[in-house]
Amino acid sequence: MAEAKQLRSFVEVPAGSHFPIQNLPFGVFRRRGASASPPRPAVAIGDFALDLAAVADAGLFDGPVLSGSQCFHQETLNVFLGMGRLAWKEARATLQKILSADEPVLRDNEDLRKKCLVPMSDIEMLLPMKVGAYTDFFCSVHHARNCGFIFRGPQTPVNPNWFHLPVGYNGRASSVVVSGTDIIRPRGQGHPAANSRPYFGPSQKLDFELEMAAVVGPGNQLGKPIDINDAEEHIFGLVLMNDWSARDIQAWETIPLGPFLGKSFGTTISPWIVTLDALKPFTCEAPKQEPEPLPYLAERNHINYDISLEVRFCPYYILVTNFYRYWTVTQQLAHHTVNGCNMSPGDIFATGTLSGPEPESLGCLLELTWNGQKEIQVGNSTRKFLEDGDEVILTGCCKGEGYSIGFGACTGKVLPALP
Amino acid sequence: MAEAKQLRSFVEVPAGSHFPIQNLPFGVFRRRGASASPPRPAVAIGDFALDLAAVADAGLFDGPVLSGSQCFHQETLNVFLGMGRLAWKEARATLQKILSADEPVLRDNEDLRKKCLVPMSDIEMLLPMKVGAYTDFFCSVHHARNCGFIFRGPQTPVNPNWFHLPVGYNGRASSVVVSGTDIIRPRGQGHPAANSRPYFGPSQKLDFELEMAAVVGPGNQLGKPIDINDAEEHIFGLVLMNDWSARDIQAWETIPLGPFLGKSFGTTISPWIVTLDALKPFTCEAPKQEPEPLPYLAERNHINYDISLEVRFCPYYILVTNFYRYWTVTQQLAHHTVNGCNMSPGDIFATGTLSGPEPESLGCLLELTWNGQKEIQVGNSTRKFLEDGDEVILTGCCKGEGYSIGFGACTGKVLPALP
Repeated sequence: MAEAKQLRSFVEVPAGSHFPIQNLPFGVFRRRGASASPPRPAVAIGDFALDLAAVADAGLFDGPVLSGSQCFHQETLNVFLGMGRLAWKEARATLQKILSADEPVLRDNEDLRKKCLVPMSDIEMLLPMKVGAYTDFFCSVHHARNCGFIFRGPQTPVNPNWFHLPVGYNGRASSVVVSGTDIIRPRGQGHPAANSRPYFGPSQKLDFELEMAAVVGPGNQLGKPIDINDAEEHIFGLVLMNDWSARDIQAWETIPLGPFLGKSFGTTISPWIVTLDALKPFTCEAPKQEPEPLPYLAERNHINYDISLEVRFCPYYILVTNFYRYWTVTQQLAHHTVNGCNMSPGDIFATGTLSGPEPESLGCLLELTWNGQKEIQVGNSTRKFLEDGDEVILTGCCKGEGYSIGFGACTGKVLPALP
Repeated sequence: MAEAKQLRSFVEVPAGSHFPIQNLPFGVFRRRGASASPPRPAVAIGDFALDLAAVADAGLFDGPVLSGSQCFHQETLNVFLGMGRLAWKEARATLQKILSADEPVLRDNEDLRKKCLVPMSDIEMLLPMKVGAYTDFFCSVHHARNCGFIFRGPQTPVNPNWFHLPVGYNGRASSVVVSGTDIIRPRGQGHPAANSRPYFGPSQKLDFELEMAAVVGPGNQLGKPIDINDAEEHIFGLVLMNDWSARDIQAWETIPLGPFLGKSFGTTISPWIVTLDALKPFTCEAPKQEPEPLPYLAERNHINYDISLEVRFCPYYILVTNFYRYWTVTQQLAHHTVNGCNMSPGDIFATGTLSGPEPESLGCLLELTWNGQKEIQVGNSTRKFLEDGDEVILTGCCKGEGYSIGFGACTGKVLPALP
């Protein structure tokens, strides 16, 4: 941590910025307006995006893995993600070096600096990768307990399998969108009242879900599981995720095959992928697991990350929680592939709603309003579920000594349903 | 049907072939051995694959949509699928013309014929498209009732939502493989005995599922549902599907979020996509639906297809059923997108297990052996679930007057689990 603290960039990084030189999250941007450009990979530094194709064109990626590679002359990060940790570490080391206060190569070359450093005010962020597959897990015991209680009653709110395996399901990858994309309120069927037809129309119980998602690197071939102790090598980094949910559609459709249209109308992720390498100073012990996990889920390095998370909307309401999970990302990946299921670069798998133990740390309105049975105060107004025009903003941050490693924001605004 | 009967090709089509000139299903092949070629789109005719890139190179696609198009100079059919019904109809008309007995352009040009017509014995078939997303529905009421009975008991074997919406869930697209690919028996957790840990190891209840899947054409943008009466324009054709299932893994993991690792180790599809245009002579009335579907699922043209289906394995056992479903493919697609969920060319959605009403028309071993409670006779042997080395072969065929429109075969062999 002492070394990380001393690291300084010649690029001015405002106090409290999520993007100091210690972070360098990866994303894909496009210049706006007259100088509109094709999508290009970048890292964030302060209020700038560092254009990685421009850095490559200047010959600055001169290490053994990246020298001559076309991985940053792509419209997504998928190729780079597929190259694995050697490439990721080399890129990070090169970028920390050329951005550091002591290194003249960019600092003292105004032309090159202008080519490489693009003010964030001039760009729009795109999805950082083509998301081939999106899996959603269910890893907060508080969320599992509350949902079980709401949907199935107080008998066994947490199903017995929950403590033996990371319960998950396949989400819909095609509707994963980047922060800032509007979300149209979905239409669908809801539970019928007794002896009537099901309700059909705009969802009356639209919700957000505070989650984080892991971005997969190289992945595995069909039939070749990833060992739990190798799983970290296949995880590039994390993003914030809002897994928008229509609780009325979900409740009616979900038996017996799980969530489907109650989720697949949109899932928002933050544009900058914060690497596990950047998060290393913020590891902490993961919760002790009882019963002991089966051998294929028992890991030598059982860690979590200490990430503070916030949700705002409307823009008043604030909930504060942490990256609280029972199952780790490495356990999720090992479980996901133990049957031979193949993962590819750019696949994502999410935590599920990150509810904490306190009433104000619940990660969705379903839990906060107990399925609409009570209201929460939002500024001068109240909410049971989301209303048209509501904007939901997720943020996440790790506080270091003298610097922060942040995720930026993951935002989305609710638009009215189609007529 | 009379016109269809009269249509004849100069290419010899053996009696009983699935691939007469009336069919012309689309696939992607690669030449084997010394003349190995990159993957190329084709249609099947008798015992030959007609190389569509070669047909295009000869300038024979001379209609307004396909003339000059690069859609057949691709390694998958996704571009062609995205072009929509105008392109599909033009391609079919052109191919039926140049293959017909009366048309000299190919018939009398030996050089061109050799370039275009490749014996099936010289090729291997590949996945016809990149499958971006795979959805599995649950559309046979017999299957729904039997599964409900086996897993949840006799009280409400069919959940009340079932008659109001096509119940479905997101499958795993990455593990969709083409016919002929071996399936490695998956490992995973199964239900624990009382007071013990869950079982972990090779699945002890490996099953096949007889299904068919629809292949999506143009698709829709996020937030723009496909109207039920336009849905057919977005469906290119059908394939056979074996949705291999590990019943012990599935039973333990499935509450509350649905099937996951019990399915995602492999799903086999047949290589030739039979177009809805080829199936037109075999339409029949779809089952009357009671209660009446909600307006977004009420369709002017409520049809099904009369397709006879067979399953063989080991190679003795045979079950015979039909493409029996309560919900139509168009209803499935309208439902899938009603919340705004976006579909893309090459996405597939499957019927779910196609069980019929008779004991010998049940579409999987779960139902045939009532979850292993009884055995079925297979030649001189018996089975409760699949054993290593078992090969499962699905076939499907529509019988016309003097010709058949068939799907070929969808096969896969079970290999032992990893040690």
